[in-house]
Amino acid sequence: MSLTSRNVNLKSIPDGMPTLDNFEIVNVDVVPAKDGEITVRNHWMSVDPYMRGRMTGIKSYADPFVVGEVMTGGAVGEIIHSGHPDFAVGDQVVHMNGWREVFTDNVDTMKAMGLRKIDTRMIPAQAYLGIAGMPGLTAYAGLYKVGEFEPGNTVLVSGAAGAVGSVVCQLAKADGGKVIGLAGSDDKCKWLESHGVDSAINYKTTENLSKSIAKAAPNGIDVYFENVGGAALEAAINNMAMFGRIAACGMISQYNNAAPEPGPSNLVNIVAKSLKIQGFIVTNYQNYAAEYVTKLGQLMAAGKIKSEETIEDGIDNAGTAFLRLFSGDKQGKMLVKLT
Amino acid sequence: MSLTSRNVNLKSIPDGMPTLDNFEIVNVDVVPAKDGEITVRNHWMSVDPYMRGRMTGIKSYADPFVVGEVMTGGAVGEIIHSGHPDFAVGDQVVHMNGWREVFTDNVDTMKAMGLRKIDTRMIPAQAYLGIAGMPGLTAYAGLYKVGEFEPGNTVLVSGAAGAVGSVVCQLAKADGGKVIGLAGSDDKCKWLESHGVDSAINYKTTENLSKSIAKAAPNGIDVYFENVGGAALEAAINNMAMFGRIAACGMISQYNNAAPEPGPSNLVNIVAKSLKIQGFIVTNYQNYAAEYVTKLGQLMAAGKIKSEETIEDGIDNAGTAFLRLFSGDKQGKMLVKLT
Repeated sequence: MSLTSRNVNLKSIPDGMPTLDNFEIVNVDVVPAKDGEITVRNHWMSVDPYMRGRMTGIKSYADPFVVGEVMTGGAVGEIIHSGHPDFAVGDQVVHMNGWREVFTDNVDTMKAMGLRKIDTRMIPAQAYLGIAGMPGLTAYAGLYKVGEFEPGNTVLVSGAAGAVGSVVCQLAKADGGKVIGLAGSDDKCKWLESHGVDSAINYKTTENLSKSIAKAAPNGIDVYFENVGGAALEAAINNMAMFGRIAACGMISQYNNAAPEPGPSNLVNIVAKSLKIQGFIVTNYQNYAAEYVTKLGQLMAAGKIKSEETIEDGIDNAGTAFLRLFSGDKQGKMLVKLT
Repeated sequence: MSLTSRNVNLKSIPDGMPTLDNFEIVNVDVVPAKDGEITVRNHWMSVDPYMRGRMTGIKSYADPFVVGEVMTGGAVGEIIHSGHPDFAVGDQVVHMNGWREVFTDNVDTMKAMGLRKIDTRMIPAQAYLGIAGMPGLTAYAGLYKVGEFEPGNTVLVSGAAGAVGSVVCQLAKADGGKVIGLAGSDDKCKWLESHGVDSAINYKTTENLSKSIAKAAPNGIDVYFENVGGAALEAAINNMAMFGRIAACGMISQYNNAAPEPGPSNLVNIVAKSLKIQGFIVTNYQNYAAEYVTKLGQLMAAGKIKSEETIEDGIDNAGTAFLRLFSGDKQGKMLVKLT
C-alpha cells in the first residue's frame, strides 16, 4: 500500500507579521512503520502562538523550525501501522508531529517529546490539544502555581478569549474569583460575558484601558494572567493590588515586532507595590498534569467548565489558522481538522 | 532646663531632582519627657533613597512627608530624659525620629515604628542605620529570600557601591558567589574591586552596558539585585540566565523623573527565560532580622564583611547628604553625624 501525506514546511522566516507565503505545502511519500516505529494519521493539529518564536531561526526555549523542513506541533491521530508493542492499530495518540497528515516516526523519539495514548470516551480527541492538553495545563499552572490564585482574588486576564485565557477565566470563576477579561473585539467581549466573566473590556476601543480596569476592579488586581504584553501590561501594573502577582505566559503583542518596542513606563510600581512578575513555560509544570486533569474532570462533570474551540478544515488552511492567532479572529482554542 | 532642637522640615515638594530649597531648618523648643515619653538627643541620622518617594505628597508604601512639617527617618541617639520604665537616661536607641537634633515623643508610638535599644559595645551606633540595620536587612532579604541566592550563583548588583548594594556584594562574595557590580564612577569601581567584587562596570562610561555585563558573566546572571531601574534593568534582562531572579529593591534612576520614562523593550525575555522579577520592602522581612544579625555577626568576626560609610557633619548638611544619594557622590551608607 502506498501512503502519501501533505506536510506544511516553513518556506521562509517571517519579517514581522507572518503571511501565508511563509508556509509551503509539499507532498511526501510515507514508508509504513518498521520495528520500533508507528505510522499515524492525524485527525487534528494545533496552532499555537509560541510557534511564532520558533519561526525566527533563533534558539529560544524550543529549537527553531528549519526553513525547507516540515514544522512540528501538537496533534492527535490514530495509529494505522505499528512496529512497537506499546501501540496497536486504532489507538488514539497525542504527540508533537503536527503540521502533516500522515507520518512514520520512531516511538522512543516521539515519547521523549510527549507521545502518549489518549482516552476519547469521556473527552473528545481534540480537547487533548486544548483544555485537556498543553493550553489547559498552562492556564492551571499560571493561575495557581505562578499567580498563587486564592478564592476571592480579583483576576485580570489578557487574551481572555484565547485557548489559554478562556480556561484561566473559567477556572478562576469556578474557584470563587472575580474575573476581568481583556479581548480585542466586541464579539469576544460578549462571548466572555456570556461565559461568566464579570467584566470584559475591548482593549482596542476603550478610551483609557487603565481607567477601564480600575473601574472594573476598584480594589485592585491580585493576579494578572499576561498573554499580551505592551500596553496591556502597563495598564495592569497601574491597577495591581499590593503583593499582586503577574503570571507571564506570553506577550503576543511583541512577537511580530520587527524592532523592539519600549516597555511600560511604570515598572517602579514593582517595588512600590511589592509585585511579582514571573515568566513560565508549561513544560516545567508537567508534574502538575495529573492534579490538573483530576480537577478538570470534576469541573467538566459539574458543568462548570467546557472546551471552547475555533476550527479550520484541512491542512491547506493550517497557515490561515496560524495567522488567525495574531489577527485575533477566533475564540478559544484554534484547531485544524485534518480528516 | 530649656531644650531646643534644629529640625529639618519639608519646605516644598520637589519637581524632578530635589534641591536644598526643598528643605528648611527650623528651631523648635523641646519639652522634656513626661509620663510615657522619652527625650532623645540624636547622634546620627540616616538619609535613604526611599525618602524621595515620601516627598511626592502621594501615598505609597509609607505615608508622605507633609509640607511645613518635620521629616522622619532612621536615627540613633541617647536618652536624656525618660518618663517610661523601659528606658533609662544614657540608653542608646534606634528609632524613626530622624531629621532633628533633639525631641520628645511617646514610647508606644515610637515602638510601633521600631524603637529599640541597641548594644554599641560590639557594633558602633551608626552601623544600626546601615549594615546592622534596615539597609543590611534589605540586602539580606533581597539576596536570599527574594533572589533565592545559592552558593556558586552569579550575582549582578546595581548601585553596588551604595548602602544596600555594598552589603549585597559582600554577602554574595562571602557565600561563594561571583559578583559583578554596576556603579557610576571609576572611583567607585576601583573601590568595589578593592572590596572583592569580581568585576565592576562604570555604567556611565561603558560603551555598551549589556555587552560589558555579558563579558563579565558569559554564563548569564542568576540573581540581579536591582537598585537602579531604567537602562540597567534592560541590560540585566538581556543577560539573565534561564530561571534568573531579579530582586527589585529600588529604581533610583526613576525617582526624579518629572515625566514617566519608557521601560525596557526586552520584557518578552521574562517569558522566554522563565524569569522572576519581584519587588520587596524590607518592612515585610523583619522576621528575618534575627537570622540576619546572627549571620552578620559571624561574618564580621571572621573579617569577611564590614560597615562602609560616607559621613556629612551636622544637621545643616542633612539636605546635602540626601542629595548625594542621587548625585552618586558617596560610597556605602550615607550618614549625617549630629553631635
